[in-house]
Amino acid sequence: MSRWFSAKYSALTPYTPGEQPKDRSYIKLNTNESPFPPSEAVVRAAEKEARSLELYSDPESVVLRRALAEAYGVDFNETIVTNGSDEVLNFAFMAFCDEKRPAIFPDITYGFYPVFAALNGVPFREIPLRDDFTIDPEDYIRSEGTVFLANPNAPTGIALPLCMIERIVAADPDRVVVVDEAYVDFGGESAVRLIPQYENLLVVRTFSKSRSLAGARLGFGLAQASLIADLHTIRYSTNPYNVNRMTEAAGAASLAEDELNHAHVEIIKNTRERTAKALAGLSFELTPSCANFLFARHPSIPGEELYRKLKQRGILVRHFSLPRIADYNRITVGSAEEMDALVAAVRELVEETK
Amino acid sequence: MSRWFSAKYSALTPYTPGEQPKDRSYIKLNTNESPFPPSEAVVRAAEKEARSLELYSDPESVVLRRALAEAYGVDFNETIVTNGSDEVLNFAFMAFCDEKRPAIFPDITYGFYPVFAALNGVPFREIPLRDDFTIDPEDYIRSEGTVFLANPNAPTGIALPLCMIERIVAADPDRVVVVDEAYVDFGGESAVRLIPQYENLLVVRTFSKSRSLAGARLGFGLAQASLIADLHTIRYSTNPYNVNRMTEAAGAASLAEDELNHAHVEIIKNTRERTAKALAGLSFELTPSCANFLFARHPSIPGEELYRKLKQRGILVRHFSLPRIADYNRITVGSAEEMDALVAAVRELVEETK
Repeated sequence: MSRWFSAKYSALTPYTPGEQPKDRSYIKLNTNESPFPPSEAVVRAAEKEARSLELYSDPESVVLRRALAEAYGVDFNETIVTNGSDEVLNFAFMAFCDEKRPAIFPDITYGFYPVFAALNGVPFREIPLRDDFTIDPEDYIRSEGTVFLANPNAPTGIALPLCMIERIVAADPDRVVVVDEAYVDFGGESAVRLIPQYENLLVVRTFSKSRSLAGARLGFGLAQASLIADLHTIRYSTNPYNVNRMTEAAGAASLAEDELNHAHVEIIKNTRERTAKALAGLSFELTPSCANFLFARHPSIPGEELYRKLKQRGILVRHFSLPRIADYNRITVGSAEEMDALVAAVRELVEETK
Repeated sequence: MSRWFSAKYSALTPYTPGEQPKDRSYIKLNTNESPFPPSEAVVRAAEKEARSLELYSDPESVVLRRALAEAYGVDFNETIVTNGSDEVLNFAFMAFCDEKRPAIFPDITYGFYPVFAALNGVPFREIPLRDDFTIDPEDYIRSEGTVFLANPNAPTGIALPLCMIERIVAADPDRVVVVDEAYVDFGGESAVRLIPQYENLLVVRTFSKSRSLAGARLGFGLAQASLIADLHTIRYSTNPYNVNRMTEAAGAASLAEDELNHAHVEIIKNTRERTAKALAGLSFELTPSCANFLFARHPSIPGEELYRKLKQRGILVRHFSLPRIADYNRITVGSAEEMDALVAAVRELVEETK
């Protein structure tokens, strides 16, 4: 740290992204990426724009946002696109939290929420999940503050039914509820259909997972126009050209291929169920995941040890050294072959401990 | 504005980017883009990465930052890459300004500086340029606070000699000086070579102008490792994957083509001088621009009128409705043909007013 670093930020503990070791090649099951590359049409759309990169991107992202509005049944003015969904989440912490409106989220959830709260100097309160890692909706129905719920939740993969989300949103029309649906395409119920009824609802989505575009950095927010306008005010005061030309085009092309994306999602869901069954057969306990990852612990192999031994065998999974979940690992659902390799490696490790 | 918008931001006046009207096709001389598209090697590098967009970008941007370190003669740890240079500028306002350290910059400069100050709730002080729009270095040598100097300055194009920058940096080792060199390749002297001597110097650069990559969104900061570490702390607390895969690759490919970029810059500089001469011949007054734009006023055509009439003729230039510069327009140096069209249109307008 330099001697000039503002006291406001000097105590920050930054977010730790999944490791990307470069010492050898790994089966990467640690950052919830899709096993499917983007389609030829998406690649061509990006490449076409690469040929005119001397020109700025459209700060209004009109083509992409029109396609989003069409795809999700909302108005153009109910959309914002960002440099990954982390950016729209950060904007929401900025816009809708302050001294009097703490951010409220589960104790076990996306690890960036407390970082965004700290970054923006807003108080936050972590509400413990139940022992089975499910959310008790009553906790959020009763609480004051701005609610951030990942649904399905990470790293548990557990989804809250839409009726419960609606109860939380409806309980207090005077506060904003942000539903982070990064993984919803893999089995959750989206709250997008609630937007016309609730002006206090912001739905956050990403192209990173189900649309195979993690490396393009594209997230978006959907809400009624007045909430979205606030986020655009912050965007135009931060980085008006926040989405590059290639990503704007790749995103629009991806929206034109819902059938293909849906087919990929179905394959991932099948692989998830097959892998879950195999791991359960090896005595693992798993949360009921509606996402593109599994969250699993073995009764006799500590989480950190499993992570470390899999890494030695060239397989990366994600371990979180946090009190309630240190026994678990989050395992991305990759290709069928990758998951076979995972199960084989895990089987060996389980045999070893017997 | 929604009723939830934080009071902290509700008074923000966002930055206004150059217009991008879609009603017809224009000769676009209003956002300082390069007239040269990126090279085939850059396009190929971006396209190659488009094929693996299912994977996140490298949050450390190792390949790109190594290439930057090599190209600019600094260490890897003395580099940070961002989603356009606006992002590293914003990080610098966050990291190095606070209640006791106002941001200090000229009254006429990049219009985003006061927006970043307001966004981050830090005080700022605008120091008037001299009547000829030059900077008086003494103003900055004497002032307390964190200095932001665009060099060459925008929208004037006027460069401050490096010895003057050094005097400002050296005057007070206890405060940070940020030198924003977006346009330096077109005729200014870079402060990068001062980095080893001054731990309070941050140099900000961009791939948008001289490297034809405005639409890829790539900026960077160079400074001694401790200043850069602070900026990375903020980056990892904001958006660790802030640069997408395609842009990481395009940037690295561009750095391997310095000869080509240099040739483009030379053409732009020649076109600038030729255009400046033609406009001077039509009685325009011009600032001595070291950038890829001209800043010009006509004694008998108000700035706003010239802007408007050129737009009617299909040519976009940038007019700023600000007290001291309302008579001027900022005109990007485009291709030779575009500048011929500009001069012809201006000649007609000048004839009309006679």
